[in-house]
Amino acid sequence: MSKLLSITEYVNGITSENISVLSKAITLIESRKVEHQELASQLIETILPFSGKSMRIGITGVPGVGKSTFIDAFGIHLINEHKKVAVLAIDPSSSISKGSILGDKTRMENLSVHPKAFIRPTASGGSLGGVTYKTKETILLCEAAGFDSIIVETVGVGQSETEVNSITDFFLLLMLTGAGDELQGIKRGIMEMADGIVITKADGNNINKAKSARAEFANALHFFPPSESGWIPEVKTCSAIEKTGMEDVLTMIDKYHRHTLKNGFFHEKRKNQNLISFQKLLDEQLKKQFLSSQQIKNQITELNQKVEQGIISPYGAVKSINWS
Amino acid sequence: MSKLLSITEYVNGITSENISVLSKAITLIESRKVEHQELASQLIETILPFSGKSMRIGITGVPGVGKSTFIDAFGIHLINEHKKVAVLAIDPSSSISKGSILGDKTRMENLSVHPKAFIRPTASGGSLGGVTYKTKETILLCEAAGFDSIIVETVGVGQSETEVNSITDFFLLLMLTGAGDELQGIKRGIMEMADGIVITKADGNNINKAKSARAEFANALHFFPPSESGWIPEVKTCSAIEKTGMEDVLTMIDKYHRHTLKNGFFHEKRKNQNLISFQKLLDEQLKKQFLSSQQIKNQITELNQKVEQGIISPYGAVKSINWS
Repeated sequence: MSKLLSITEYVNGITSENISVLSKAITLIESRKVEHQELASQLIETILPFSGKSMRIGITGVPGVGKSTFIDAFGIHLINEHKKVAVLAIDPSSSISKGSILGDKTRMENLSVHPKAFIRPTASGGSLGGVTYKTKETILLCEAAGFDSIIVETVGVGQSETEVNSITDFFLLLMLTGAGDELQGIKRGIMEMADGIVITKADGNNINKAKSARAEFANALHFFPPSESGWIPEVKTCSAIEKTGMEDVLTMIDKYHRHTLKNGFFHEKRKNQNLISFQKLLDEQLKKQFLSSQQIKNQITELNQKVEQGIISPYGAVKSINWS
Repeated sequence: MSKLLSITEYVNGITSENISVLSKAITLIESRKVEHQELASQLIETILPFSGKSMRIGITGVPGVGKSTFIDAFGIHLINEHKKVAVLAIDPSSSISKGSILGDKTRMENLSVHPKAFIRPTASGGSLGGVTYKTKETILLCEAAGFDSIIVETVGVGQSETEVNSITDFFLLLMLTGAGDELQGIKRGIMEMADGIVITKADGNNINKAKSARAEFANALHFFPPSESGWIPEVKTCSAIEKTGMEDVLTMIDKYHRHTLKNGFFHEKRKNQNLISFQKLLDEQLKKQFLSSQQIKNQITELNQKVEQGIISPYGAVKSINWS
């Protein structure tokens, strides 16, 4: 890591929208070194008052659905509407080099060279807080740096979707035409989580198929119970190549924003996200401290096996732990 | 509580299918007294080898869907197929007197007087392990007492469905005709959890409506991604009054059983249920011990408020705790 800055330098740099300082700050919060984490924690608390003023959009879809081209086209559309766009890509495999989702900025060829866009892979992996706590902190930093549209991208096959939903305001699912087949790749439950579905590649010979897929999905969504937000998910079609449908998607998100601001769900959701995150981190910290003893660790491993083999009940296992 | 028995008396009574001893044992495990809990824990570990040999069926649906009459008719059908049926009813409100789901045995008029059936409300509430750990232990006791069909009933509006799904093998959702409206009462996500849907009250003038609802639900399920079990949920219709459709429901559950035994999912799911339950109980126990200090409790309350108000980040809040 390059030389550390002081808190004041980080905060001044970020709030004056200096991208180079923003990048350094993200690197700092992603560091696993204890002394970096102390500084990172201090930084987050300091920029907190400058954060929060963006629309946080989670986007997912199976490989091949065209996430990169969609985000590239949608991001440019947002910028044309006078927004500043940050794209954070989560790789659930936690290996930066492997996933095509990461690193390769050229996959968003227009957005990656635009001065009002910021693209960054975001660290994940088995650290405290799971996949997303560092992504959440990265969102806060980006917001403090003036980005008012944050896109968090993930591949629609892992566990990370629920976690992304827990740090974003609007959850967008990209789908291909030919509803049915491509669902094989989507994890159960993700469709019910979506605030909006966009059928991609609605161009050329594919247009009619996309339109009928849209009708089918809209019909299927009708069978889903209403969400807590009171929002009824909408289905749109788009073509990233022909740059069509982007306005529809933005209109949908804006409509959702107004709807949830009006009924209070928007802030309620963010508040709950924070509370749940606190509880989760607290639980993990407790467990970490508890498991710092090798003796306890061995005990738990052994009990896990006994529970798995059905030799002892889960409740009996907890009772049998020597807590002293 | 009536006089306690010895472990041997409980175990001998239960394994010789003595219903009176079974009832006493359930009362014991539901007790909150520490000395009862010690005995209960010992009892569960002792009967564990006699448990496990039942089909555990979770049944839910909104009030008015006809759960009681369905379970009454379906239970009698099971008994006619030489099964022994235990019905455990969970009241998520944790107040035994309030819910119509509990207490009133006469709502299952045929089953409640049948010697091969056992109906019992099951304790819930804020105790260690949440709504269902005592229900899970009750299942184990019933299995040891020779019940090979366990029905766990819950109202389809609360959080308890996910928990019931975590202690049963097959999750059945009862639905009324006129798909759409009645979904209002069903919590988001429950439909995706269902291994089977049964449209109730398919009788009289309602038959055609039920048939078309069945087709609509089957079509909607087509849009759901396949579950981990590789099982495709089925939709049936039934009439508890005309006693029709019960065979279809049983055939579906048997088919699911064979399917998941064959691909290993059945035992895999039970194993995972135990492991997850152990982890959950462990987390709760840790938290309980951690929160036994009033000072820590006050600290957490204060931090919760700060997180909620956005004054401190969830991560900062955890960091700020004085762990010593």
